[in-house]
Amino acid sequence: MTNELFGGSLSVVNIGLESFGETLQQHGGKVSSVDWQPPADVDSSLQLSLTELAKQSDEIQQANRTATSRLVECQPVWTDIVTADTALDLETDRTILHAGPPITWENMSGPLRGAVLGAITYEGWAETIEEAEQLAKSSEINFDPCHENGAVGPMAGVISPSMPLAKIINQDQGNVAFSNLNEGLGDVLRFGSYNESVIENLRWMEEILAPALRQAITDLNGIDLKHLRAKALHMGDEVHNRNVAGTALLTQLLAPNISTQTIGTDSEKILGFLRDNEHFFLNLSMAASKAATDAASGIEKSTIVTTMARNGTEFGIRVSGLGDQWFTAEAPSVDGLFFSDYTAADANRDIGDSSITETSGVGGFAMAASPAITNFVGGTPDDAVAYSKEMYEITTTENPNYTLPQLGFRGTPTGIDVLRVVDTGIHPIINTGIAHKEPGIGQIGAGVGRAPRESFISAIETFCQKYIE
Amino acid sequence: MTNELFGGSLSVVNIGLESFGETLQQHGGKVSSVDWQPPADVDSSLQLSLTELAKQSDEIQQANRTATSRLVECQPVWTDIVTADTALDLETDRTILHAGPPITWENMSGPLRGAVLGAITYEGWAETIEEAEQLAKSSEINFDPCHENGAVGPMAGVISPSMPLAKIINQDQGNVAFSNLNEGLGDVLRFGSYNESVIENLRWMEEILAPALRQAITDLNGIDLKHLRAKALHMGDEVHNRNVAGTALLTQLLAPNISTQTIGTDSEKILGFLRDNEHFFLNLSMAASKAATDAASGIEKSTIVTTMARNGTEFGIRVSGLGDQWFTAEAPSVDGLFFSDYTAADANRDIGDSSITETSGVGGFAMAASPAITNFVGGTPDDAVAYSKEMYEITTTENPNYTLPQLGFRGTPTGIDVLRVVDTGIHPIINTGIAHKEPGIGQIGAGVGRAPRESFISAIETFCQKYIE
Repeated sequence: MTNELFGGSLSVVNIGLESFGETLQQHGGKVSSVDWQPPADVDSSLQLSLTELAKQSDEIQQANRTATSRLVECQPVWTDIVTADTALDLETDRTILHAGPPITWENMSGPLRGAVLGAITYEGWAETIEEAEQLAKSSEINFDPCHENGAVGPMAGVISPSMPLAKIINQDQGNVAFSNLNEGLGDVLRFGSYNESVIENLRWMEEILAPALRQAITDLNGIDLKHLRAKALHMGDEVHNRNVAGTALLTQLLAPNISTQTIGTDSEKILGFLRDNEHFFLNLSMAASKAATDAASGIEKSTIVTTMARNGTEFGIRVSGLGDQWFTAEAPSVDGLFFSDYTAADANRDIGDSSITETSGVGGFAMAASPAITNFVGGTPDDAVAYSKEMYEITTTENPNYTLPQLGFRGTPTGIDVLRVVDTGIHPIINTGIAHKEPGIGQIGAGVGRAPRESFISAIETFCQKYIE
Repeated sequence: MTNELFGGSLSVVNIGLESFGETLQQHGGKVSSVDWQPPADVDSSLQLSLTELAKQSDEIQQANRTATSRLVECQPVWTDIVTADTALDLETDRTILHAGPPITWENMSGPLRGAVLGAITYEGWAETIEEAEQLAKSSEINFDPCHENGAVGPMAGVISPSMPLAKIINQDQGNVAFSNLNEGLGDVLRFGSYNESVIENLRWMEEILAPALRQAITDLNGIDLKHLRAKALHMGDEVHNRNVAGTALLTQLLAPNISTQTIGTDSEKILGFLRDNEHFFLNLSMAASKAATDAASGIEKSTIVTTMARNGTEFGIRVSGLGDQWFTAEAPSVDGLFFSDYTAADANRDIGDSSITETSGVGGFAMAASPAITNFVGGTPDDAVAYSKEMYEITTTENPNYTLPQLGFRGTPTGIDVLRVVDTGIHPIINTGIAHKEPGIGQIGAGVGRAPRESFISAIETFCQKYIE
């Protein structure tokens, strides 16, 4: 077939969608026909816009090179532990940050509500869960996305003013990113639990864990997270849902210092906490990814995705050339393995900022590095390799700092291009934990999902509106 | 072609060499011709013997099942740290144990001599290296293989009476195995260095490290090495030349206890030592393998290999049905990657007891689990997978306790059958460090070698002599 559908001009058509630009280049600009049709959901109006947009193809490609080089060159170093209310520019004293795009209490899913109630209790703003719920419903609490405050948090991603945050500096661009600290497994706030043990654990983290870690990090002049993540990728982690190696390597670095701090038996409890929490490294990996994607944000005319995040109700992306604007869709369901006693019917929709790892080119995009993760999220080691290979189709570069041994040390697929996603119909893979849909229960499984297409389509539409003169 | 060459009787021929037994079984005993010739070095006399031996095929297979089940069922637990002279039944007060089969001072290679001189100094039996050399040459020192004293040691494998040893109990069969403790990298005794810093480090290990580890292990009721090795195999280690994960996981287990011991800043130095020595787990992995292979030894009529070890001059194997007898050949050269300033011309022949890991079914046999090791020993991740796949051809079972993610969690190839080695011409792969051939220099590289064929041929000859009535 010919390219008439896409505007009649071959060179325009082929540049209009990124992958076609490649095809054209491969043939020296002499492609006379292509076996291709525009995706069904790219309507004739959007086709016309893309034809127009294609005239700026060179600038778009240049902008994308800038954005992806920021992803690749990021040098994330964990330099400090700070408190949310002092480190972040929170809008009010009673601000609670959450994962994903903006959302109101009314629209929050069970696990996010549960985590909010826990945070209100932890802050001492309410005595009981009932009071906490009244407060949450009132206008006294300001809800705001972590992502709009320079931070990220897994699952519910709830950060309240007193919580200790890891501070990560990107030594390449100088920008800063924050994450909360991982609470461990079992009953934890991030999966929507809010019982007494959850709150006690949060207090212990604030009062004992955080100061000791802060001392160690300071004494060690920071922890190089790029080095740790690169090493962990050679040790079966994909640094999103599997962090066994990252956590162990981090513990090796911190333990000598922690053992000499004059904190009595607290050192045993802290090192025991790190020993028993294979996910401790997750939040740090997320903040390292956030440091990279923030550095890649706001590049005019870049079509590179800089955020993918879910609040349990909606999924949202942000795109470099479109700044802070969210493009949302219903949060997807997750296909995965469920703990005994639970099924897909108990599952909340996808939730959490942890998909920032995929956005930056690791996590699900690096699953080839992590055959053993399939015991946790389902599938086979061959599936894991296939996921990584597929993601090269929608990304614009390979990150030589993060390599995949199972693919002959090929760099991880990095820099998701919204145009490629829409053109190929290949949607970003995200592996993730699964929360129970009711508040107060917690994690019920883990699995693999796909970023929903609608958000990419609407991002392209807005991109055309913004950039076509 | 027909099977006339191997004795004229089809059933005998096919059972005479193990792999042919399999072929026969697969065809219900109705194979009429096979595309096969006996290996060139299996002479007519040995062919006749094998024909005779084949009459005992059922008993041999039963014995091999017993031996390999001992390898698979081994439950190695690190329970204690003890001193060589109290734990081992050393023949004299001035016994020095070494890697590989028996050897005299005259025949020792450079690195083994260097390690012996260092051990004599460490024990205080001589004031200077010159005096140590005089002593080594005299008949006052009794040299004995580690393997004949229930112990193993990497590279030179030198153990002298005052050295602390890890004690591993096989909770399946109740037998015990020992290894020395890993000294770290750089100037170390096991690669033939013997300078002052080497001796100082050994003393620190004896006086500070060993008591602290002993306390931790005792408080923890032992360390389950099977669990750690299984986990490490899912984290890119093959638990011989790559022990990054094993060491990190072990550190996670030990650190909480060590941090609470009243040993002041020693805790920082101990945990720093574990942080900086990615090979610390190696010696423990070796002792875990030794616990398995010793349990599989001495099974009458079994053709399973229970030892492969090198002293830097000779390579030797032992076979279950042949007890403690060594079958030796010249130690092979190792093909590998050399540190800058060194080449293959500087390399000593293969040395060390660490090939006990391959003997028990891990190490080189598990290289598929360890794509990143190719950065250290050479080759590609595909080569690593190919090595593991090849080793299934010469082993009789797969160990479900140690699985290879890259092969869809297939069990490691376990139980080397001397008959299969000779029949197939596939020789056990061993990955290894490479020592400089002169004493006092140390490690110059790492690589991959093959067990030499001659030792397997002579083992089969002796086996026939012993068992043919």
